[in-house]
Amino acid sequence: MSLYTKHKDIIENAVKAMHERVFWAQFPENPSPKIYGETADEEGRKKFEASLNKNFQELRQAEADAWLGVEESPYTQQGLNIKYPAFSVEKLIDRGTHGFNQWRKVNYKERAGLLVETLERMKNRFFEIAYATMHTTGQGYMMAFQASGPHAADRALEAIAAGFEELGRFPEKTVWDKPMGKFNITLNKQWRAIPKGINLVVGCSTFPTWNTVPGVYAALITGNSVIVKPHPGAVLPIAIVVAEIQKVLSENGFDPNICQLAVDSFDKMITKDLAEHPSVKLIDYTGNSEFGTYLENIKGKVVFTEKTGVNSVILDSVENLDEAINNLGFSLNLYSGQMCTAPQNFYIPADGIQTPEGKISFDAFAEKFAASVSSLVDNPKAGPFVLGAIQNKNTCTRVEKAVSLGKLVLASKALENPMFPGARTASPIVLAVDSSQKEVFSKELFGPIALLIKTKNTDESIALAKEMAMEHGAISCAAYTTNEEVKEKIMDEMGQAATPVSFNLGNGIYVNQNAAFSDFHVTGGNPAGNASFTNADFVNKRFTWVGFREPVKA
Amino acid sequence: MSLYTKHKDIIENAVKAMHERVFWAQFPENPSPKIYGETADEEGRKKFEASLNKNFQELRQAEADAWLGVEESPYTQQGLNIKYPAFSVEKLIDRGTHGFNQWRKVNYKERAGLLVETLERMKNRFFEIAYATMHTTGQGYMMAFQASGPHAADRALEAIAAGFEELGRFPEKTVWDKPMGKFNITLNKQWRAIPKGINLVVGCSTFPTWNTVPGVYAALITGNSVIVKPHPGAVLPIAIVVAEIQKVLSENGFDPNICQLAVDSFDKMITKDLAEHPSVKLIDYTGNSEFGTYLENIKGKVVFTEKTGVNSVILDSVENLDEAINNLGFSLNLYSGQMCTAPQNFYIPADGIQTPEGKISFDAFAEKFAASVSSLVDNPKAGPFVLGAIQNKNTCTRVEKAVSLGKLVLASKALENPMFPGARTASPIVLAVDSSQKEVFSKELFGPIALLIKTKNTDESIALAKEMAMEHGAISCAAYTTNEEVKEKIMDEMGQAATPVSFNLGNGIYVNQNAAFSDFHVTGGNPAGNASFTNADFVNKRFTWVGFREPVKA
Repeated sequence: MSLYTKHKDIIENAVKAMHERVFWAQFPENPSPKIYGETADEEGRKKFEASLNKNFQELRQAEADAWLGVEESPYTQQGLNIKYPAFSVEKLIDRGTHGFNQWRKVNYKERAGLLVETLERMKNRFFEIAYATMHTTGQGYMMAFQASGPHAADRALEAIAAGFEELGRFPEKTVWDKPMGKFNITLNKQWRAIPKGINLVVGCSTFPTWNTVPGVYAALITGNSVIVKPHPGAVLPIAIVVAEIQKVLSENGFDPNICQLAVDSFDKMITKDLAEHPSVKLIDYTGNSEFGTYLENIKGKVVFTEKTGVNSVILDSVENLDEAINNLGFSLNLYSGQMCTAPQNFYIPADGIQTPEGKISFDAFAEKFAASVSSLVDNPKAGPFVLGAIQNKNTCTRVEKAVSLGKLVLASKALENPMFPGARTASPIVLAVDSSQKEVFSKELFGPIALLIKTKNTDESIALAKEMAMEHGAISCAAYTTNEEVKEKIMDEMGQAATPVSFNLGNGIYVNQNAAFSDFHVTGGNPAGNASFTNADFVNKRFTWVGFREPVKA
Repeated sequence: MSLYTKHKDIIENAVKAMHERVFWAQFPENPSPKIYGETADEEGRKKFEASLNKNFQELRQAEADAWLGVEESPYTQQGLNIKYPAFSVEKLIDRGTHGFNQWRKVNYKERAGLLVETLERMKNRFFEIAYATMHTTGQGYMMAFQASGPHAADRALEAIAAGFEELGRFPEKTVWDKPMGKFNITLNKQWRAIPKGINLVVGCSTFPTWNTVPGVYAALITGNSVIVKPHPGAVLPIAIVVAEIQKVLSENGFDPNICQLAVDSFDKMITKDLAEHPSVKLIDYTGNSEFGTYLENIKGKVVFTEKTGVNSVILDSVENLDEAINNLGFSLNLYSGQMCTAPQNFYIPADGIQTPEGKISFDAFAEKFAASVSSLVDNPKAGPFVLGAIQNKNTCTRVEKAVSLGKLVLASKALENPMFPGARTASPIVLAVDSSQKEVFSKELFGPIALLIKTKNTDESIALAKEMAMEHGAISCAAYTTNEEVKEKIMDEMGQAATPVSFNLGNGIYVNQNAAFSDFHVTGGNPAGNASFTNADFVNKRFTWVGFREPVKA
């Protein structure tokens, strides 16, 4: 049985889900022993531990020029001491070109079957990937499991499904028969979806698989070869995924260099050399705006980016104040504000927020919000696991410096982590500013930093949220309103700023969360980027339709 | 009955045709009295004549700042003396923004119905448009009718159909219901396709409707407003189309400024001011590479271009030499080589082309080809109508200067046109060069100029055709080979250069021709442009998907 036949149902279900956009997941997000087996967690942890202080030997990439690795756990602030094979840019490009010339000729159905198989293999390593993610990104266990495991695999499957559908949208062959009156002109026609070449995928330090696999699988399903350039600080989670892809490629007679890992170190980054190489035609990138904009401006490349954004919360009126406040407090605490979807700017009218019990003033809201944030931070059974650790020291510095930005509502502090006494932590700092202080809130303040912004009224709140999104990008927006007209206005205005809006979230679902097969992520239209997980553009731009025709012989 | 209901079948048939890619046309290409009525041609000619020496009053664009018009007929070399209302850039942008804010909120089905209605109105004016096209572009009557009338309308319908399908690919609303074990999280979700803003469409002088309407209709179906900036030398054909669009908009209660005409003159072009305006988010352009590349590099715009290309003919082996030669001779003569799909570089192996009668040498082929070109040029009943007139004086100069480029095989000459003694004409010049003279053939030589290039062998022919396409762009390629391996190699290599290939064309169908709903036109992937008539990209890039979600109330 071919891998396509084996996985046909999964692919077809994924295509269907993508169109229906109801809840659907191929990979269960619950790390329950009932689903993944009694020993899965323990085995994953042991495998992760066994990989420390060693060379990573799983890749099918021979003849390394060096062995590199500088990862450090935010939970222990110690190096992982794992070394990965490193290669010259020329070697990576030569091998990627070789892989491309094999892979581009493979039928897309065969590609799809093989790629789904790699996700099934990845599934067997979700727990190991979870520990690898914790100890490179600082995510809590649950997020590390879900985001780097099942959610990433579902986003990858979504990219496969999108590519599968697009590549099958036009017939491979047809007979074109045009009546000309006394005779017909009859042509055999065929069309090929021609992939572009090598696709560079540049990873980030906070979501090393979730933000990387959509580009990898979108590139592969459309017949391009891939070079994955992970962030030097978060290699292991994606190295495991690449190793599994390479194994499946090899087992099926393909060149494993169709998907390569390209590790570098902070003192000698190779991203620019790769990106500027003429054989690299496609680039996926997650990270800061400056480098993203540099990549977008290299001539002759198709570039997909997820850059920084200034995410807004518009507070107009609420049905249940405590639910709203607790929801927002959790959203801010979650992974210490290090998600691209985390809220930063909270717009509150000067005359307060309407509630069923009357208006709550700006100051009273600020106080209750601070209390909600603190209650989770100070809960030893929940706080350390929700907040996790801080990936990058610079984020801690940013939080420290933020104290001068406005009136302090809640100070940041270090959290005790019962399992990891050496963890690098910082709880959210909350500041109050006025809407006139635009220079303060007109940029992304990455990390656990929240600004409560006093506006003239909801109209100004909406205008500022829209302006921030259009000028500086935005990936999410939360809004609370019980007024249908205000809701429509928010949809209309934030829609024009290409920013999805979550209204009136209460218990159990947060603005940060983003479901595969249903929520579009970064669809373009504002400066936050265009790495649209997943609409047609995300795969269509990776190949070109070319037609061939010839008269049918009489 | 709504216009959508009225035209639903047409839209659905168009979507179906786009996917099947068999022959299909909504608008008959034959200007036969049986189809269009006994008096249609005569009436069209009279209407055209009646529009000369007047102000063009049909547009619903009041308060002109000036009346401008500099068109000149290539058939008479006299000015048409038609003046069109002209407006300041600010007025165009203000009105376009007003139109946008109305149009963007209209349901796409309603838009589709209304837009198909405009094509039905355009159909009533095909003959008038044909004469307007002849006397601005120099096209022969048959091409002017077909290209500017039914073929353009079919390409417009194709854009409507593509947009219609993309806008309907995701549900407007759904309920997302996620089982969480003990409870479900249930969200109402909705998605909106948010248009980008004002779409500038910049026309060219040779195909003033065919190259303009796809962008216009792609923009309008996706909810953007349009400013059509025609080439100052070819305004009337598209002015008639815009007038019909405006009438249908007005009749249905919409702002006619949803689609505006922006006329300028050679001495004061407004294209750059429009293109650089921040409210202009989308640009469609047909014309020279230099200006196209300038447009592509303006920050923050989505740009669709059809620029210059170096089209190749690869001659390896033929089954019927005379048919091949006559086909290529006709292709070169057709509209005097002024089509973007016209062949320019003919690659012929030094040791000749294989035929059933043995090899024909380079020189013998050159001689027969010249004879074939001449026989049509010198046929008074066919030549003047196939070759038409030369749109731009510079093309004549280019042909004169071309004589120094290589060994003269056939000289260009003026043709007598029995109907228009003052016509500006030039028959093809054919030159022989060696493949080593790359500087000669590495650029577009727009107009009736053919280079017969002596190559080492077919492998070199393919390599050069591919290189020209990848470095300088290509829109078409013709190839003659009876060898299946060579054919596959040509498909593989030219495919990588994103160039469609027509193999072994004989009687009745030419490499220049390009059928709506079947042949993709300029799909991107080489420097000739990316104005892909019509794949999903051509419409998808004109809007952004944005999602909204809210918990379902218990």
